[in-house]
Amino acid sequence: MPTINLNADIAEGWGAYDIGNDAELMKVIKSASVACGFHAGDANTMHRLCMLAKDLGVSVGAHPGFNDLWGFGRRRIQMKPQDLELLVAYQIGALQAMAAYAGLKVTHLKAHGALNNMAAEDAAYAMAIGRAIQAVDRNIIYVALYGTEMQKAAEKLGLPMALEGFPDRRYADDGNLASRAIPGSVLKDPNAAAEQALRMVRDGEIIALSGKRIKVKLHTLCVHGDEATGVAVARGIRQALEAADISVVPLTDMQL
Amino acid sequence: MPTINLNADIAEGWGAYDIGNDAELMKVIKSASVACGFHAGDANTMHRLCMLAKDLGVSVGAHPGFNDLWGFGRRRIQMKPQDLELLVAYQIGALQAMAAYAGLKVTHLKAHGALNNMAAEDAAYAMAIGRAIQAVDRNIIYVALYGTEMQKAAEKLGLPMALEGFPDRRYADDGNLASRAIPGSVLKDPNAAAEQALRMVRDGEIIALSGKRIKVKLHTLCVHGDEATGVAVARGIRQALEAADISVVPLTDMQL
Amino acid sequence: MPTINLNADIAEGWGAYDIGNDAELMKVIKSASVACGFHAGDANTMHRLCMLAKDLGVSVGAHPGFNDLWGFGRRRIQMKPQDLELLVAYQIGALQAMAAYAGLKVTHLKAHGALNNMAAEDAAYAMAIGRAIQAVDRNIIYVALYGTEMQKAAEKLGLPMALEGFPDRRYADDGNLASRAIPGSVLKDPNAAAEQALRMVRDGEIIALSGKRIKVKLHTLCVHGDEATGVAVARGIRQALEAADISVVPLTDMQL
Amino acid sequence: MPTINLNADIAEGWGAYDIGNDAELMKVIKSASVACGFHAGDANTMHRLCMLAKDLGVSVGAHPGFNDLWGFGRRRIQMKPQDLELLVAYQIGALQAMAAYAGLKVTHLKAHGALNNMAAEDAAYAMAIGRAIQAVDRNIIYVALYGTEMQKAAEKLGLPMALEGFPDRRYADDGNLASRAIPGSVLKDPNAAAEQALRMVRDGEIIALSGKRIKVKLHTLCVHGDEATGVAVARGIRQALEAADISVVPLTDMQL
Repeated sequence: MPTINLNADIAEGWGAYDIGNDAELMKVIKSASVACGFHAGDANTMHRLCMLAKDLGVSVGAHPGFNDLWGFGRRRIQMKPQDLELLVAYQIGALQAMAAYAGLKVTHLKAHGALNNMAAEDAAYAMAIGRAIQAVDRNIIYVALYGTEMQKAAEKLGLPMALEGFPDRRYADDGNLASRAIPGSVLKDPNAAAEQALRMVRDGEIIALSGKRIKVKLHTLCVHGDEATGVAVARGIRQALEAADISVVPLTDMQL
Repeated sequence: MPTINLNADIAEGWGAYDIGNDAELMKVIKSASVACGFHAGDANTMHRLCMLAKDLGVSVGAHPGFNDLWGFGRRRIQMKPQDLELLVAYQIGALQAMAAYAGLKVTHLKAHGALNNMAAEDAAYAMAIGRAIQAVDRNIIYVALYGTEMQKAAEKLGLPMALEGFPDRRYADDGNLASRAIPGSVLKDPNAAAEQALRMVRDGEIIALSGKRIKVKLHTLCVHGDEATGVAVARGIRQALEAADISVVPLTDMQL
Repeated sequence: MPTINLNADIAEGWGAYDIGNDAELMKVIKSASVACGFHAGDANTMHRLCMLAKDLGVSVGAHPGFNDLWGFGRRRIQMKPQDLELLVAYQIGALQAMAAYAGLKVTHLKAHGALNNMAAEDAAYAMAIGRAIQAVDRNIIYVALYGTEMQKAAEKLGLPMALEGFPDRRYADDGNLASRAIPGSVLKDPNAAAEQALRMVRDGEIIALSGKRIKVKLHTLCVHGDEATGVAVARGIRQALEAADISVVPLTDMQL
Repeated sequence: MPTINLNADIAEGWGAYDIGNDAELMKVIKSASVACGFHAGDANTMHRLCMLAKDLGVSVGAHPGFNDLWGFGRRRIQMKPQDLELLVAYQIGALQAMAAYAGLKVTHLKAHGALNNMAAEDAAYAMAIGRAIQAVDRNIIYVALYGTEMQKAAEKLGLPMALEGFPDRRYADDGNLASRAIPGSVLKDPNAAAEQALRMVRDGEIIALSGKRIKVKLHTLCVHGDEATGVAVARGIRQALEAADISVVPLTDMQL
């Protein structure tokens, strides 16, 4: 029986502030990427999420971002790779402590927002993230976009890696995500996203906006909870996968 | 041969800012209480300190404070004990990741500033700190002031505990530190501080301001680097101890 | 025709985070107390609110809080009154710049959360707030709870002052708010709150929980948007006041 | 008698942290660019500086930076120009309130660090800064590097503008600062810097690294206090200017 993982960014509240739809999304996904206190998230949200993850059999990963709470980690920031590495390592450690409350381990890492975007293109950033994993716990799975510097960094460092796809986003011919600015590049219809998810997992291919077929072996699909339509799309994807006898499992149960 | 530990608060810079005199102080002490990013300290300062500690054979502990960078953790803040517990656990975890770079473990915890002062008096705060230790790594030594709620919390939770004395501070009759507002309550003369250190370790007693003798078994003496005279006082204390054939060792080598 | 002001705390989002129900509440109130960037609020939220206030004929005041974004200004913090004064002055100035975009002036000040609670009891805090007003613009109206140190400070400094009542809260015999811990002390029923508002304005009295009548001349009533029932209660109060031929006006139009 | 202004970035401490050498530098300069709380500076440092400026006859300007305290405003951050504009306006307003304590006005603005560097090249950033000035107080002098987008923005908006030179930095042929990476591009010798200052002011020209002469009319020269040699260089410059009968005056006394 084929398997796939569903992951989402989660626990992005902070202090008195809440955002997203964690409770619903956590019932759909099997791996949670938890904000670690820098772009979002605090000890309370991290702790709450880890306890919930334990109850629901969801695996927990670090979701480190720039130290930019105001910008929610969405602003591109230029910094020294060595500073970035330690920033990421710090965030992993903080989440490990919170996961300890639930008897869980931090089993994957997925960079957030602008950090993820920059690390996709910038080898020094991608390596900085990889080195942080290596220093803190080299069993942590590096979640990487296909064809990016992150994939190369994980391979170079010999880290376990999971390739990630976005079933609710359309793709360019080179395998990168098409810009959100292109009309139709974000799929808000659960059926369309579910259809793309099935293509990705069952058929091992992405149909780019141009119609081009890109063969790719993905390990995890990312779903979203921050837009109104996110949870419905996520549910549609999961149902379509299970209807096709594809088992949705934690990242830790995937063959990487 | 009798033993004692010398500890200091350390690595309290942040970003572009520096403070204290870490390089000199690290040569005098045997255990470093490392600021963890909330009242002071960042991933860079924590990492640098851990690497230095490894080189110098200094054991590393967490020095968590309130989430109050502006106030440098010196402002008393009222918060829910559960929130405080998670705040402390988060800080421990972050330091564990930084210590991993040096192949070190976090082996003690000493609360900072206003948090330390409040936890000395407030059982709920003292227990919150203890529970954070318990959740993350119950081998971490809880550094507590003699006769305080912290001592009681460590005992109640069955955590390893080290009782701490301040050789450069005078004491009240109840074993608490005399207020800084009392003239002469802070010893800036290395000889006077060294004399009190010897009393504490060799004779197992504190002579209060009133002249009263308080019998006490201390495991660690705290020295300071933030005042101009701090390092000189710290050196004086260490020399006096060694001259009296008292071995200055990491907290992990103390019989607790 | 008798007049009264309705005010609310507003614009308490920050960065990517939103909170409260500003759009609806702004249609009900006539004076907005705007978070100034320390416990909540940022340049964007402040600017947006000022532009909206101009459109709706709502007067704008500063709503300074402790520098405690994580705690949303609800944690009691001990600090030097001089530091507090400058913290408040800074926040007033920041809002003045944002108000300049709308061609508005900052015409009142109401302290937020824990700062308001502490300043009610602590003369040094209450004077610190008053001195900040005095230094930046002594025409700013100091919003104070009846019978508190804030009232005394405003009188001592000769500042314009508005006494504030809470129609959705019950009172103790001494004129202070009854603790939220007492069942029934928070009125979530629009009719009950409207009834108390009428008593306060039309009859110039508060009926304490014990039944005691307290005579009081109030200038502004505070309504809330942070609870689900808040906006409905606020609307109920305004309708009841207007049905009783009481005109709801900006604080700047009140006889103080 | 010819005149010139000397300015410096100042008051860049924060909370318990201090940096730079304000007391000495303030005796040399005639205009202070005051950090406003985002990349550095807080209400205390701003207040202290304004009081000192009044005593010394130094004019006060805003020195806004990115909201990046950790990075000390030195990290390039991509953000929406509208967000940046409001961020700058907020900082001006905050400083105006602090200046009110000293009976001073904020009379110039100079962007800090990465913001200054980015605004030199990026028209949208340069205009955002200019629009903030325009909204809050259009009499504020926009300090701009010669030949940059900031100069163009000030001209486009019709704002008073001061062109700034760096006597302790060497220049490229296009009038921009030569990279610090080029050996000798930073002048640490007071005589060399004083020589360049004289060239700039007396002769109205800059000799680029290549030897090329660039004719330029400058209104203010920037000196530094953050490096060990900064104050000595600053003193050397001032003495050389005065020895050449050039009067060093506040920016507000310059013919712009």
